[in-house]
Amino acid sequence: MTAASDAASAPYEAPAGLAGVSVAHTKVSDVLGRKGFYHYRGYNAVDIARRGRVEDAWYLFLHGDLPTAAQREEFARQSAAWRQLPAGVAEQLPAIAGLSPRGSLSSLRTALSLAAQALGCRPWGDQTEAETIEQAARLSAIMPVLAAALFRLAGGLQPVQPRADLGYAANYLYMINGEVPDERSRYAVERYLMLTIDHGFNNSTFTSRVIASSGADIGAVATGALAALSGPLHGGAPARVFDMLDAIGTPDSAEPWLRNEIESGRVLMGFGHRIYKTIDPRSQLLHEVARELHSERVELAEVVEKTAVELLAELKPGRDLYANVEFYAGVVLEAAGLPREMFTPSFACSRIIGWMANVLEQIADNRIFRPLAHYDGPEAPRELPAFWQPGQP
Amino acid sequence: MTAASDAASAPYEAPAGLAGVSVAHTKVSDVLGRKGFYHYRGYNAVDIARRGRVEDAWYLFLHGDLPTAAQREEFARQSAAWRQLPAGVAEQLPAIAGLSPRGSLSSLRTALSLAAQALGCRPWGDQTEAETIEQAARLSAIMPVLAAALFRLAGGLQPVQPRADLGYAANYLYMINGEVPDERSRYAVERYLMLTIDHGFNNSTFTSRVIASSGADIGAVATGALAALSGPLHGGAPARVFDMLDAIGTPDSAEPWLRNEIESGRVLMGFGHRIYKTIDPRSQLLHEVARELHSERVELAEVVEKTAVELLAELKPGRDLYANVEFYAGVVLEAAGLPREMFTPSFACSRIIGWMANVLEQIADNRIFRPLAHYDGPEAPRELPAFWQPGQP
Repeated sequence: MTAASDAASAPYEAPAGLAGVSVAHTKVSDVLGRKGFYHYRGYNAVDIARRGRVEDAWYLFLHGDLPTAAQREEFARQSAAWRQLPAGVAEQLPAIAGLSPRGSLSSLRTALSLAAQALGCRPWGDQTEAETIEQAARLSAIMPVLAAALFRLAGGLQPVQPRADLGYAANYLYMINGEVPDERSRYAVERYLMLTIDHGFNNSTFTSRVIASSGADIGAVATGALAALSGPLHGGAPARVFDMLDAIGTPDSAEPWLRNEIESGRVLMGFGHRIYKTIDPRSQLLHEVARELHSERVELAEVVEKTAVELLAELKPGRDLYANVEFYAGVVLEAAGLPREMFTPSFACSRIIGWMANVLEQIADNRIFRPLAHYDGPEAPRELPAFWQPGQP
Repeated sequence: MTAASDAASAPYEAPAGLAGVSVAHTKVSDVLGRKGFYHYRGYNAVDIARRGRVEDAWYLFLHGDLPTAAQREEFARQSAAWRQLPAGVAEQLPAIAGLSPRGSLSSLRTALSLAAQALGCRPWGDQTEAETIEQAARLSAIMPVLAAALFRLAGGLQPVQPRADLGYAANYLYMINGEVPDERSRYAVERYLMLTIDHGFNNSTFTSRVIASSGADIGAVATGALAALSGPLHGGAPARVFDMLDAIGTPDSAEPWLRNEIESGRVLMGFGHRIYKTIDPRSQLLHEVARELHSERVELAEVVEKTAVELLAELKPGRDLYANVEFYAGVVLEAAGLPREMFTPSFACSRIIGWMANVLEQIADNRIFRPLAHYDGPEAPRELPAFWQPGQP
């Protein structure tokens, strides 16, 4: 007896992981996997990332279009003010940081949840739309503040207070390292952040919509989406790509090392994508940015990318495995002065902007996500076993 | 240009909320909505709830079958030991409790996230299966400890330490009220807890699977699922049913009050269910339990249920709206001595047992949930607007 046998009409049996299933309509973004193209509200995301600042893209996600000069100036001022932690949060960060390794998304998750409490987030049906939007914006602005503070605390350093006179990316690096970054580093990190704000219904974005559809407050939504991002199959790979480059060591070792990995059946970190069957456009811009940073690591990465793509085509024909966003991300972030532990937290900082836009869209026309499952266990109703004696103490 | 036009084969366009879409295979549980029947691993859930203890059902979810007498005794001992909070959590609870109203799922979410950190939960691919299972069990045992402690702290009381000599339900009431409950109260609360452990792919259970599919640790999963449960469209309604009974006041007022609500287009709390198109079997047993508790509230609730079902059939014909699990839940829990603020946290305590069984099943045969969306915004690529001048400071 299954759900299927009971339903009025037989349910649609979706492929595992909902692959190829469209679960909602959206005006936020889209990924055209075969064209190697993705966009933010219709605009080529790479064009925006190449030319703008985080605040431009953030404004686009929050308000639906890119800002005019006046809107840009006002938004920069406003978003700098949102960086202020609400009362009751800063005091708890040392204890939270002390329970997980440096750069852990687990401590960031607890801190974000606490900040959401302190902001007084209520179920979105119980407060005004303006309150929900402001909380969404403030949580987005707070994420980097929490990430930087937790990183420093876990390393025995005092947090560095945000500086309202610095833009998003410069302030982010400043809060982590305690010094205003040079222009090249700021530029590089800003490209990464802008490229990774949104990308269709990836796992954490989908999570944010599923949770929001229950009527949960926006802080609960952000916490749950961050939980999803902590999964190595989603947000957790940039540092692992880096570990791979470390393990390979020199360009000469790339071919034998990679061949052995693939032939041993292990998955290469930084290659392949559910949606892209061509080169990931995010990887292309990050590759350009990496080149401008001239590091030995970049040269190694280029050899590894080329070799891996060739080997994957040879050993896994027809799979269309190319470098994804994570491949050059670590190289760029490290060369720009971001500690390796901060790779995934940095992803959380940009991606929350995308989550919030998706959630605001979801709740504007909501139906709770409540799918079915195909039961294939023991036939039900199953007789209670004689060995079970619930009457006994 | 949409995802559809780009994909190799056109994606399946799922109904809003994934209604009627089966997203996975499962051996954990199933709901047969038209039969008014649901089961836990094939066994009629109401039969188990009527006769057993929380530990019996918990064992069933964790180990796949009901326990023998010896297994039952051993599991009771073991699960009582799991109630111990890991180091670093208890000290933070006063501050966490202080940031949200009493009984808030927001403070419970932060505390659970912190406890998961303290347990050292790592991505499930990075630790042994035994470690993941133990963390799942400990998080399930810790949830009521956190819920009770936060409730007391938010009311200015000291937490009451769990007692290993009490069963799950008795200990739960003891930790909340500071006294060992009478048998009738324990019996009533235990029925509620057992009835609400699992129920197909409801929103929070689906959330737990989506997050787990990213490879995230089991603590991240539990935190995200709890975030979903905080949504009033999912876990947040039992207290609201109660508010409705308060507003109605006396049996005589039921008919005009309910008629006015329905005719004004407002949704009646505690009626209707996405899956059940008949009486909710959970509601039936809770109604029986409520009757045994003989309170004025029960008499009022019975009149309200009967009147509401008749009015809904008259005013919303063909919608098959009947009392759901939440309708009698509040009545039972209050009569058993549970404060109203603890209704939704109590639901979290039982439901985490279901989440964990679903997650362990998910990760045993995983594919990341990564659906598509149908983009219907401005045609892409859209020309960058002339008013946007990113080169300006």
